[in-house]
Amino acid sequence: MKKVKVAILGLGTVGGGVYKLLERRRDEMPQRAGARIEVAKILVRNAEKAAEKADRSLLTTDWREIIEDESISVIIEVMGGLEPAGSYILEALRAGRHVVSANKDLIAERGGELLQAAKEHGCDFLFEASVAGGIPILRPLKECLAGNEITDVMGIVNGTTNFILTKMSDEGMEFSDALAVAQELGYAEADPTADVEGLDAGRKVAIMASIAFHSRVGFSDVYTEGISRISAKDIKYARELGCDIKLLGVARNTEEGIEARVHPMLIPSTHPLASVKDSFNAVFVHGDAVDDAMFYGRGAGEMPTASAVVGDLIDIVRDMEWGCTGRIGCGCYRDLPVKKIGDTESRYFIRLHARDRAGVLASIASIFGNNGVSIAQLIQKNTKDGFAEIVLVTDTVKECHFRDAMTILEGMSVIQKISSIIRVL
Amino acid sequence: MKKVKVAILGLGTVGGGVYKLLERRRDEMPQRAGARIEVAKILVRNAEKAAEKADRSLLTTDWREIIEDESISVIIEVMGGLEPAGSYILEALRAGRHVVSANKDLIAERGGELLQAAKEHGCDFLFEASVAGGIPILRPLKECLAGNEITDVMGIVNGTTNFILTKMSDEGMEFSDALAVAQELGYAEADPTADVEGLDAGRKVAIMASIAFHSRVGFSDVYTEGISRISAKDIKYARELGCDIKLLGVARNTEEGIEARVHPMLIPSTHPLASVKDSFNAVFVHGDAVDDAMFYGRGAGEMPTASAVVGDLIDIVRDMEWGCTGRIGCGCYRDLPVKKIGDTESRYFIRLHARDRAGVLASIASIFGNNGVSIAQLIQKNTKDGFAEIVLVTDTVKECHFRDAMTILEGMSVIQKISSIIRVL
Repeated sequence: MKKVKVAILGLGTVGGGVYKLLERRRDEMPQRAGARIEVAKILVRNAEKAAEKADRSLLTTDWREIIEDESISVIIEVMGGLEPAGSYILEALRAGRHVVSANKDLIAERGGELLQAAKEHGCDFLFEASVAGGIPILRPLKECLAGNEITDVMGIVNGTTNFILTKMSDEGMEFSDALAVAQELGYAEADPTADVEGLDAGRKVAIMASIAFHSRVGFSDVYTEGISRISAKDIKYARELGCDIKLLGVARNTEEGIEARVHPMLIPSTHPLASVKDSFNAVFVHGDAVDDAMFYGRGAGEMPTASAVVGDLIDIVRDMEWGCTGRIGCGCYRDLPVKKIGDTESRYFIRLHARDRAGVLASIASIFGNNGVSIAQLIQKNTKDGFAEIVLVTDTVKECHFRDAMTILEGMSVIQKISSIIRVL
Repeated sequence: MKKVKVAILGLGTVGGGVYKLLERRRDEMPQRAGARIEVAKILVRNAEKAAEKADRSLLTTDWREIIEDESISVIIEVMGGLEPAGSYILEALRAGRHVVSANKDLIAERGGELLQAAKEHGCDFLFEASVAGGIPILRPLKECLAGNEITDVMGIVNGTTNFILTKMSDEGMEFSDALAVAQELGYAEADPTADVEGLDAGRKVAIMASIAFHSRVGFSDVYTEGISRISAKDIKYARELGCDIKLLGVARNTEEGIEARVHPMLIPSTHPLASVKDSFNAVFVHGDAVDDAMFYGRGAGEMPTASAVVGDLIDIVRDMEWGCTGRIGCGCYRDLPVKKIGDTESRYFIRLHARDRAGVLASIASIFGNNGVSIAQLIQKNTKDGFAEIVLVTDTVKECHFRDAMTILEGMSVIQKISSIIRVL
């Protein structure tokens, strides 16, 4: 019986899960993958500490011990971060090793370069786990939906923010309180910036857009806006309008170029993405043949992420068996422009406070009108202190025109405060 | 530039869609699949009629013209039905042709035999379109989730019945009226038996269970029960209990064997499958690593089904290019028993009419109790004519014990009628 030796870089949450899952499936691997799979080495920072999680004899703190071991055919990179992960992967591919990675930061930044290296050396380089954890999305986009012209990929791809928004929505909490709960439960990190400001989701959008549209989109091409300014009140008004607020990663392929952005958005409560609660993830795809499709599941966590990594590993082992490694590589054969956020179009939800005085609504409306922004819906509630809270939803308008209107509005003396601006699907 | 010639068997809804999609993607196929794809022949019953849909010169009514043309490498079978499709596919595989099929009836009956023939001749035999139309589900199960021990696959895999149940639920229609609407809109056939009695869904369950559990499940192993006895009243009571009623295809891998069944079921309104409306399909999967995942989309229709067929075709062309056809074949390396429906366990919703008389509830309860059926919930509503409508939900019980209790209950003089028995998730 053939045997494939693999090394795991990193024994954190995901690395531990991968090791555990490979142990659990050990006896059935020959039938599932066509060969035994043996974890030969695990790269760790602290071997003493790591010995709690895996056999001490497998642990090493020395990358050279792994890269110089020619019996190891597959490297599983689950250490995260740009470096040294990037250098290790590049070195591994150049040495003819196949690589599985769960590293969204790295792939969003250097995916093209790494895929190129894989191609040059006839290697598989797979990274299903880098987007939406356990949910199969990259392989379905690359293979199952390969007959489609994909026009939209839209997802809830950050579990932390979805958990926070669910708490705010179901329990009326404010952002800071919901964040504190998320931190307490381990859903959010002590420094939650990457999650709550949409950076993590932005990296996933870059990866998905590149694959779906066959054109490289880097992280720096993605506009990101987080959820820290969303209030419980916005969610309440959204409900009145029949909507939920979600942090969406949006990638669209339009005639004028690719749109790649992350921001909170009002979506109709009947939309399949609206029912995605707590820390679950989901990716909604629209293609010219398949129409609407959605992929839902656990976007993070030890075992769900390990599921994606081990799925990729089994694919590589099969490819080795059949002599077809490199079969699914980079699919970016186009070079499409990426639109600036100001050139995208959207509908907008605006919540503002203005003096409760005759003619105020008219002057607000005229500023919108002068900038080509038409108003689709309006809710006005008077407060006790002589101010009115006004919620407006616009029709579709180019972002730059909308921003012009906002700038003028902000300067008006009757406007006390523009509290929220949120895009509407 | 390499070219792969294919033949399409059948130019009905799906065949027409496949032809259209291949035309639409023609110029990009070299970049997506590694070769040009040319439709060389299309097998039709009536070439005159078919000429409306495709170039007359491609059409033939003679299978021999296709099977004897050695320049054709891939056969796309979208004619449906057991024969002659089965003979054609077998002949094609034995002649070393790769095959894509959308034929659930055939694969649920003879999948093992056809996969065996594919293996013997080093051919690809792919059939993503046979389950849930455009939704990627078979490849994700075989590849992305290959590291998992899958324990549950549960799906809304028949669009006709889901459309009918949605109409009944949203508009309070009775089954027969909703069926009439479905027929009018072309969602249901003139003879709707295969859809409404769960046979169509049963075939898909057989295919999914075989793949998910690595053990052959045939259509005859699947217990099927349809939705024709569901009434608007059942749906109303379900709502009171916080549930929706869906026709579910259920496959479970338990310690005592595989369960494979199709029947209506009450599911909590918060369950992801509950939000699957109209003719949409969705498949919910539980694996030991991935936890819960769901795949949602269009389960039928010209272009969604073509999406799945062309996805398979592109995979085959890639495999030909890389010399690895046969790479993903039959995964049934186990031989697990399939449980009889009487040996499965479930919770049950029962709606019955009994005399509105002291002691009636007590005697019903004692019959349940004597048969080991415990009651979890009860709603009683008195009607004007001296009868009470009673709705009961049981705790989990073995189906055979539950049926014993029902038989005794039916014989009781105080019971006017047992109107509904529906399983509860």
